Amino acid sequence: MEDVYVLGIGMTPFGKHPDKSPADLGAQAVNLALSDAGVGRGDIGAAWVGHVFQGMAMGQRALYAAGISGIPIDNVENACSSGSTAIWDAALALRAGAYDIVLALGVEHMTTAFRGALAPDPSDIEAQLGLTMPGIYAMRAQRYMLQYGVEPQDIARIAVKNKRNAAMNPLSHFKKAVTLEEVMQGRLIADPLRMHECAPISDGAAAVVMVTKSKLKQLGGSRAIKLAASSLRSGRTEVGLVDMTVEDLTWRTAEAAYEQAGVGPGEIDFAEVHDCFSIAEALRVEGMGLVPHGEYVARVGKGEMDLNGILPVNGSGGLLGKGHPLGATGVAQVVELVKQLRGDAGERQIENAKIGVAHCRGGKAQGVEGTACTVNILVA
Amino acid sequence: MEDVYVLGIGMTPFGKHPDKSPADLGAQAVNLALSDAGVGRGDIGAAWVGHVFQGMAMGQRALYAAGISGIPIDNVENACSSGSTAIWDAALALRAGAYDIVLALGVEHMTTAFRGALAPDPSDIEAQLGLTMPGIYAMRAQRYMLQYGVEPQDIARIAVKNKRNAAMNPLSHFKKAVTLEEVMQGRLIADPLRMHECAPISDGAAAVVMVTKSKLKQLGGSRAIKLAASSLRSGRTEVGLVDMTVEDLTWRTAEAAYEQAGVGPGEIDFAEVHDCFSIAEALRVEGMGLVPHGEYVARVGKGEMDLNGILPVNGSGGLLGKGHPLGATGVAQVVELVKQLRGDAGERQIENAKIGVAHCRGGKAQGVEGTACTVNILVA
Repeated sequence: MEDVYVLGIGMTPFGKHPDKSPADLGAQAVNLALSDAGVGRGDIGAAWVGHVFQGMAMGQRALYAAGISGIPIDNVENACSSGSTAIWDAALALRAGAYDIVLALGVEHMTTAFRGALAPDPSDIEAQLGLTMPGIYAMRAQRYMLQYGVEPQDIARIAVKNKRNAAMNPLSHFKKAVTLEEVMQGRLIADPLRMHECAPISDGAAAVVMVTKSKLKQLGGSRAIKLAASSLRSGRTEVGLVDMTVEDLTWRTAEAAYEQAGVGPGEIDFAEVHDCFSIAEALRVEGMGLVPHGEYVARVGKGEMDLNGILPVNGSGGLLGKGHPLGATGVAQVVELVKQLRGDAGERQIENAKIGVAHCRGGKAQGVEGTACTVNILVA
Repeated sequence: MEDVYVLGIGMTPFGKHPDKSPADLGAQAVNLALSDAGVGRGDIGAAWVGHVFQGMAMGQRALYAAGISGIPIDNVENACSSGSTAIWDAALALRAGAYDIVLALGVEHMTTAFRGALAPDPSDIEAQLGLTMPGIYAMRAQRYMLQYGVEPQDIARIAVKNKRNAAMNPLSHFKKAVTLEEVMQGRLIADPLRMHECAPISDGAAAVVMVTKSKLKQLGGSRAIKLAASSLRSGRTEVGLVDMTVEDLTWRTAEAAYEQAGVGPGEIDFAEVHDCFSIAEALRVEGMGLVPHGEYVARVGKGEMDLNGILPVNGSGGLLGKGHPLGATGVAQVVELVKQLRGDAGERQIENAKIGVAHCRGGKAQGVEGTACTVNILVA
């Protein structure tokens, strides 16, 4: 199989874009990625476009707006893992030798398309009865607190860290750091989670141009970053099983990625993980085997996950700070990994960043089964 | 690249299934395909699931209901080409060597999920003002009539042929042949198209188990059929261009498939094409270069596209007769090709069927750009 590289990245500011359509946002990200990659519209062989709520043919609308046409365009959905699933598909196509330059785009215009915010699916009876996303994560936070003896303010420090990082990211939805006191004085959403601990409703898009190794040699680009692994899994998760603080789906997805990349969890230098809620970051970093179960929250308190810590997590600001336009999130994480691995992350640059991991977890559990999880590993 | 084969096929009856969920239908098709392939749930390495209107995580719901979990599951959408896009993705993954047995499923429960039938997208201003799907195809039929000197009843013979074939297909939505008089006495939907000339609103699912050539050798299955080409294209179409009777998008997609399969249009023995309306069949068969432009309707009148004709088209009954659950349609076409190429098509068996082609065309044109087209070529 061909090795796969990310050659170009593009991302719109995340936030509220009432004056722009999702196609506008998608086209903007695509144009930035093409320009960064130094390739033309006509060089793209195929495109995968991740989104959740944008309706039919979102990818076509965005790509035509960017002047790209005549190629295979494929819309993919895997809840919050939609964008990273587009990357996964694109990597498979490159590995098949079917194309040598492809595009993965993630886009979401949440402010127009996300109606009935907390329980978007009317057939989801659990959600209609209160087991919404904040409810699920609050329950998991309560269990984590009980099991590992931590307090709400310990978990809240995850939000403080991520919003501090977001304040250094010019593309973030939130650009203001918050103190622990501010987080703890925030409105209670679902006990113990408060306003700053919940990802916002954002609009935005992110795109990557991906190439085979042989094409990269031909193009001679020096800023390409290797996509050493792209892993997607669905299935058994944690909710409803013995221990809802242990993410089995996250572990199985990460395990497959470690194997594909030939990299162990101990070799990861930094991570972007799916912090849809503060507690979620703990569950994911522990789930990927980067920190032992029950230790993450305490380690955040010691600063180990800060930009200058042992294992910087969500240096971009994460979903809590950078924002969370569902379909765009998984691609934006890879955009951030590339920036860090190129040494282009400005004041949030992580020193000696050589191996980064991006983690997304999409959808609710249906009984004991989760929707989808992705893990991408990039190596400088 | 690995050669790809269809090892197993499964399909629910198409029609009205008010008592079944889309997950029920999807699981039923998957179980039939697994059984036909002679492989177990645990053998499936990954799955792609095409649908349009079924909401988040449709594939997960269907596959979990079939007892398949723990693998990558990817939901794909390309309007009426969604199911065939799932096949395209699955073929790429096999060609990449990433998996050796994969599943492609198409599913749609139109009767519950397709609201506002004629103009489903409220942002589609053209459709809201009357340029709905029947409107578009009626316009194209009018142009075809003017340009090639044919009458409404000539076009209507396509519906007569397809409903006659459907009556021989136990899985069809419609199981009753209709006379030309019955078609012409049908309610006028959009002049000249009448009720029998418009695809119905159907529920249903279809699935295929696909394998690499090396895995097939290992399994030793003798009923596998080669997927010699799977082609997907988006982009410039016909509407708004010089001649709306010429399907440029269909031609470019077919051309890529012919090249991939090493097969010319003259070698095709039979076809399943996207006859969402009677006239559409003419546009597609001509668009794929199987019949010269402007000749198709006259040739149908001569019986050349009957099951015992020179080029049988829509022997399954097509969308007009078999039904059109959007996401399932593209997979169901391939299911029919496999049945014919195995010699398993019963009373609708085409003699000496060696090379079959399936064509789907999804979505409206946006300006001059169409959403998606797929062409799959199968060889016995």
